[in-house]
Amino acid sequence: MKIILLVNDGMSDQPCKDLGGKTPLEEAKSPNLDALARLGMCGIMDPIKPGVPPGSDTAHLAIFGYDPFHYYSGRGPFEVLGCGGSLKLQPGDIAFRANFATVNEDFIVLDRRAGRNIPEAKELVKLVDGYIPPSAPDVNVYLEHTVEHRLALLLRGPGLSPRISDVDLGQSKVKLNECKALEDTKTAVQTAQMVNEFVRNSYDVLSKSPLNKKRRIAGFPPANVILLRGAGMLSKMQSFGERYNLKASFIAGGALYKGIARALGMQEIPVPEATGKFNTNTLAKGRAVVANLKENDFIFCHVKATDSMAHDHDPQKKIEMIEKIDKMVGYILKHVSLDEVVIALTADHTTACSTGKHTADPPPIAITSSEVINDDVVRFTEKECAKGRLGRILGVDVMPILLDIVGKTKKFGA
Amino acid sequence: MKIILLVNDGMSDQPCKDLGGKTPLEEAKSPNLDALARLGMCGIMDPIKPGVPPGSDTAHLAIFGYDPFHYYSGRGPFEVLGCGGSLKLQPGDIAFRANFATVNEDFIVLDRRAGRNIPEAKELVKLVDGYIPPSAPDVNVYLEHTVEHRLALLLRGPGLSPRISDVDLGQSKVKLNECKALEDTKTAVQTAQMVNEFVRNSYDVLSKSPLNKKRRIAGFPPANVILLRGAGMLSKMQSFGERYNLKASFIAGGALYKGIARALGMQEIPVPEATGKFNTNTLAKGRAVVANLKENDFIFCHVKATDSMAHDHDPQKKIEMIEKIDKMVGYILKHVSLDEVVIALTADHTTACSTGKHTADPPPIAITSSEVINDDVVRFTEKECAKGRLGRILGVDVMPILLDIVGKTKKFGA
Repeated sequence: MKIILLVNDGMSDQPCKDLGGKTPLEEAKSPNLDALARLGMCGIMDPIKPGVPPGSDTAHLAIFGYDPFHYYSGRGPFEVLGCGGSLKLQPGDIAFRANFATVNEDFIVLDRRAGRNIPEAKELVKLVDGYIPPSAPDVNVYLEHTVEHRLALLLRGPGLSPRISDVDLGQSKVKLNECKALEDTKTAVQTAQMVNEFVRNSYDVLSKSPLNKKRRIAGFPPANVILLRGAGMLSKMQSFGERYNLKASFIAGGALYKGIARALGMQEIPVPEATGKFNTNTLAKGRAVVANLKENDFIFCHVKATDSMAHDHDPQKKIEMIEKIDKMVGYILKHVSLDEVVIALTADHTTACSTGKHTADPPPIAITSSEVINDDVVRFTEKECAKGRLGRILGVDVMPILLDIVGKTKKFGA
Repeated sequence: MKIILLVNDGMSDQPCKDLGGKTPLEEAKSPNLDALARLGMCGIMDPIKPGVPPGSDTAHLAIFGYDPFHYYSGRGPFEVLGCGGSLKLQPGDIAFRANFATVNEDFIVLDRRAGRNIPEAKELVKLVDGYIPPSAPDVNVYLEHTVEHRLALLLRGPGLSPRISDVDLGQSKVKLNECKALEDTKTAVQTAQMVNEFVRNSYDVLSKSPLNKKRRIAGFPPANVILLRGAGMLSKMQSFGERYNLKASFIAGGALYKGIARALGMQEIPVPEATGKFNTNTLAKGRAVVANLKENDFIFCHVKATDSMAHDHDPQKKIEMIEKIDKMVGYILKHVSLDEVVIALTADHTTACSTGKHTADPPPIAITSSEVINDDVVRFTEKECAKGRLGRILGVDVMPILLDIVGKTKKFGA
């Protein structure tokens, strides 16, 4: 038996006023998600633990069975690994998640995503890549564009520490945050200084760029600064395949998710139409899952845009994304046998359209195969799945439950 | 958004024979408790962990998010803090919960509460307060009356240890228990000896008092001895307000609950009609909650008598108390907006009318605001709440879940 793990980022939600108090999952027409619920066993899952709003990175580590309290060291390394580009993470590197953003001359953040759509991104990156901070001539800053406003950034050199604060506070209309050392060490203080030099330089260079002048004329916010967050060094982790004795592959558009899967040694199944954005081709992902099942024991398939739509306070587009995901699931259900496959469907966390933020409310989960005892749940929603026989489980419970269904667990005791 | 936490002591129960196998919550007419269930998300909560019958003190610590396995040191310190009288707890003091009780000349406990209603309590206390144990002339015993048969007691001086056994075993018709050292240290042995001297002296003095002669003539059991339990020293705890970044206040009649709230630095909202007894004015409490909501982020409101009625094996009076609590909840629901407030309603533990004891059966909990996804539960009972989407949570999960709803949690990860 094989495992298909479908994680739809931030898919669950809170009651939306625009939807008369319903959630996007409740409003969406999703016969195939509902079929998974009907045929399987359902529950709700605290990715980290009750009351803790998960990041996408910590939630995925937990769902893959890697306790994030032990393994998590900041988002940056996963983002850099996710680029899949020329940036190769080396031991000792400090990696960051970075954004193009728009600030005014007083460094007030007007839009922390610079409008999100930045076709000039690769050209703009060239202007600041390779920067050497004046206070640390041995250190190099490497930069790479991933998707939309998103960048991966890497500091390489001596005297570096990841124990520094974020420049990007996750909100607009506030003054750009100065990077500070989070501990009283020389390396943390120096690293914070380098970061501040880099950010200041990015503004000096980008705000003068003709590309941004053109953006302004066209009515788009200029991508005139780079904001950093999630500084981290990569923890040493046993590969997913070795740990569970599975041949594991992944399909994902977003850099962070590619990065986590790569950090765990999963093989990528390339799907060019998987963009990590609203325009992603979920049906192409579904086809790739089915086509590669024979050669794999485990396929992780991630869809990002449900989360992005909620961050953008857009429940209607979130519903559309859910309906696109439903078609993907329909394709998979039509082309696999539940005698040979177990499908787990969940979200890594709840993202509320009302606030645009992650919440700790546990997302629904369905685990479906002909091996499992199903329950009376017939809809894949926040409310209905909570009535299922999986009950309320933790993120780190997911892999053991799946492994047991496919007979890959070891008895404890005799 | 603000938080109202309503804890009704020992409100949940087991099936009562007198009620045809129903529980007091099932038999009570409680449309407002049911409204909280209907509008919110419900579950059951193990205050400590499954199968562990909680004390009121450990349960409250857990519900406030302070792991009692780490912070709990005996009930005494909270009882003394709860007096709010002249007894000021100092570092190194050993504090006790104490009871007036009735023993015969063979020290058989006839009534470990001396009839519960003791109007002469303050006069009787004067007879034994300030006692100096003959074996430890540097140690003073300080005593204060709280509510009904209840007292707070404090040992102050050198050579003291809280590692001693209870004199009050929580049952009548047994011989008064001798206090023993729980560890083989000089201080524990000495402290146990002092306690035994104090208890013996309390009998010698109180049994001779004309006040007790009058009680006997009037048909009341004499309050002729003082029983001690819950020896403890106060742990160092970060204040609730600092820990959660909330302005927090409390409303409670019982000394123990005032003591716990004070130990955590909550401000008292004085409600003179909150007596901690059956005659308490729950509506006055409800009015105080509403009137003080503007100036607070968090209000903890405690009602004691549901527990007392169960300890007294009186399901009918427990039902009456639940119906009084229902009116309090009705007042609150009428005067707050669930867009601005989250209300959590629960009990700190189950107290069974049949046995008069705390049990480990997890009490129901409802968490209600317009932010939460409700479920199909429409009655606030032990049985119905167990079907809700909160599932089965722990006491220490309550605060994180509430903080997440009011947006006071920090995302773990990115």
